Amino acid sequence: MEHTEAAQAQDRARTLGALGEDEVLRRILARVAAPAGTAVGPGDDAAVSTPAGPLVSTADMLVEGEDFLAEWLDPRALGRKAAAQNLADIAAMGADPHGLLVSLAAPADTPIETIEAIYDGLAAECARAGTGILGGDLSGSAVLTLAITALGTLPAPAGTGAPAGSARPWLRSAARPGDAVVLAGTVGRAEAGLDLLFAGFRAASAPAGCAELIEAQLAPRPDYASARALRGWARAAIDVSDGLAGDLGRMARASGVRIDLDPAALDRLARPLLPAARALNPAGDAAAHRERARGWALAGGEDHGIIAAGAAPTPGPPQRGTPVGWEPIAACSAGDSGVYLAGRPVGLKSFSHFRENG
Amino acid sequence: MEHTEAAQAQDRARTLGALGEDEVLRRILARVAAPAGTAVGPGDDAAVSTPAGPLVSTADMLVEGEDFLAEWLDPRALGRKAAAQNLADIAAMGADPHGLLVSLAAPADTPIETIEAIYDGLAAECARAGTGILGGDLSGSAVLTLAITALGTLPAPAGTGAPAGSARPWLRSAARPGDAVVLAGTVGRAEAGLDLLFAGFRAASAPAGCAELIEAQLAPRPDYASARALRGWARAAIDVSDGLAGDLGRMARASGVRIDLDPAALDRLARPLLPAARALNPAGDAAAHRERARGWALAGGEDHGIIAAGAAPTPGPPQRGTPVGWEPIAACSAGDSGVYLAGRPVGLKSFSHFRENG
Repeated sequence: MEHTEAAQAQDRARTLGALGEDEVLRRILARVAAPAGTAVGPGDDAAVSTPAGPLVSTADMLVEGEDFLAEWLDPRALGRKAAAQNLADIAAMGADPHGLLVSLAAPADTPIETIEAIYDGLAAECARAGTGILGGDLSGSAVLTLAITALGTLPAPAGTGAPAGSARPWLRSAARPGDAVVLAGTVGRAEAGLDLLFAGFRAASAPAGCAELIEAQLAPRPDYASARALRGWARAAIDVSDGLAGDLGRMARASGVRIDLDPAALDRLARPLLPAARALNPAGDAAAHRERARGWALAGGEDHGIIAAGAAPTPGPPQRGTPVGWEPIAACSAGDSGVYLAGRPVGLKSFSHFRENG
Repeated sequence: MEHTEAAQAQDRARTLGALGEDEVLRRILARVAAPAGTAVGPGDDAAVSTPAGPLVSTADMLVEGEDFLAEWLDPRALGRKAAAQNLADIAAMGADPHGLLVSLAAPADTPIETIEAIYDGLAAECARAGTGILGGDLSGSAVLTLAITALGTLPAPAGTGAPAGSARPWLRSAARPGDAVVLAGTVGRAEAGLDLLFAGFRAASAPAGCAELIEAQLAPRPDYASARALRGWARAAIDVSDGLAGDLGRMARASGVRIDLDPAALDRLARPLLPAARALNPAGDAAAHRERARGWALAGGEDHGIIAAGAAPTPGPPQRGTPVGWEPIAACSAGDSGVYLAGRPVGLKSFSHFRENG
């Protein structure tokens, strides 16, 4: 009994409330690094840095109960995911990352280890993308909340002596009739992983081929390198955060083009999702599994794959393994700004905050 | 009865949940403007802009129940405050604002008018500071949360033909023995206003001299113009967010100097706070009122005044009315990195999130 009380007291001593803001900040700052070349890093009123070209900026929040559930929380994975979804937006503009600003709000009874693991995850994904953390804020809240701003810079056009910043950003509105559309990275895996989690599967005990889908949900890994490989060819792009159908639709509407998704490409994208379809419906037949997997590939966001369009043909044959690679998935033509599959319009299902009856 | 049900249904139809994310975003984007010269504003994966010099970046969150109370919520004032506290950090680096990124999370039953008023307040304060909104994010949450990143750029040194960015940032660590310390803006008003609010006073019905203190709490107005007037003289600065004593202490420790606060300056700063001291303690005597007012002036953050240090003498006599002005308040000398008042160390009381027994 006495032992339990002592252990509880020790646990309480390791919460944010007990340690206080200054000590929590000290521990966070010990775990993160500013990007190379930063003049003034975290610690003053603001950071000072020198972007190499025009600035690209984007912000995203992750909120407990809305974007992730406390019961599945792997805090390191959460940090990775928060960094990844912002850095994917920078990559989808054709830009290099310049740094993150991270604001975190958490309940006073949060263990310091949870916060440290979140920042370890943020730092790990920043390192994978070749950047770091410029600054941020720490606050109390009843709801664990991570708000990130990612900054990036536009590079010089590939293979030219032009100065940094003379490359154009990849706008979603810049696709043209005749363009080919490629996907860098993956789609549908995070959504299949979410359904596996809802059904009670966990990465450690999942059937073959399912653990990586659960991982994609908990900590997606955008394929920054494959996005970079498209420089010099791509002129339009969008980060797939709401699903292939939804985000191809956004590109189609913004660019005023019709986009025809290649059914064979969709089947290729759906193939790695089949193990989840089988695990969730062991009694189903192959047609049912294929249908479910195609549904995830069409409607599943959060892998943060990047769709890019440029003048056909694509820059060489599909490139795989950097780490995922890119491959052609669709073609643009003059038309009614919709997305089509085998000649029929694709329903645009996309995730929306706030929509109660969606 | 039927009428009430109809009215309730109409109210529900005007919540974030009923309108859905796309419609809420459309309404927000109609109320905000990107800063002048922005190449790509809100709406794509990220914004694209061209900073005129080295980049200054900072982030801050405002959380319901922690940084503001729902019962006092004036949503327009909240937007103003959120923008002001971030833009004050930019001004306290000696920088010009480049733009804000705004992430907002709110419950699905929040009326759209609340959100519109928050963005009206953000846009109004951005306009006062001469900047705009580059982008952001919208999410659901049980707790209303505003997370802001402010960007700025270092200007060219005043009165020279040097290129933008060659001015040095005003670091808190750059004060030197012999420097004079000035305050641009005000201190203590927001804290006095908070105590008035806790005691039940409201701006509309407050005694003479008290309404402006309540306003300073609900929507502080940093004196950006007076901070700019110190360019070419200041070399160190800090935004007073945690109180004059606490933030002078931070400058003293970071710079390794002793800072002596001028008792006459403290009395001048305390004078506008006397109406609150009298309203809260009508039976108290003048000495008690003076003591309370000096306490607010020493310990009250959130006016977002800016403390700056530079080589003595100060750049001319105190400058008042732009809109508030700046005035000398302290002097630096070689010493023990503390803050002193009439030869005695000043207790460093500062606000801390998470500290339960602070």
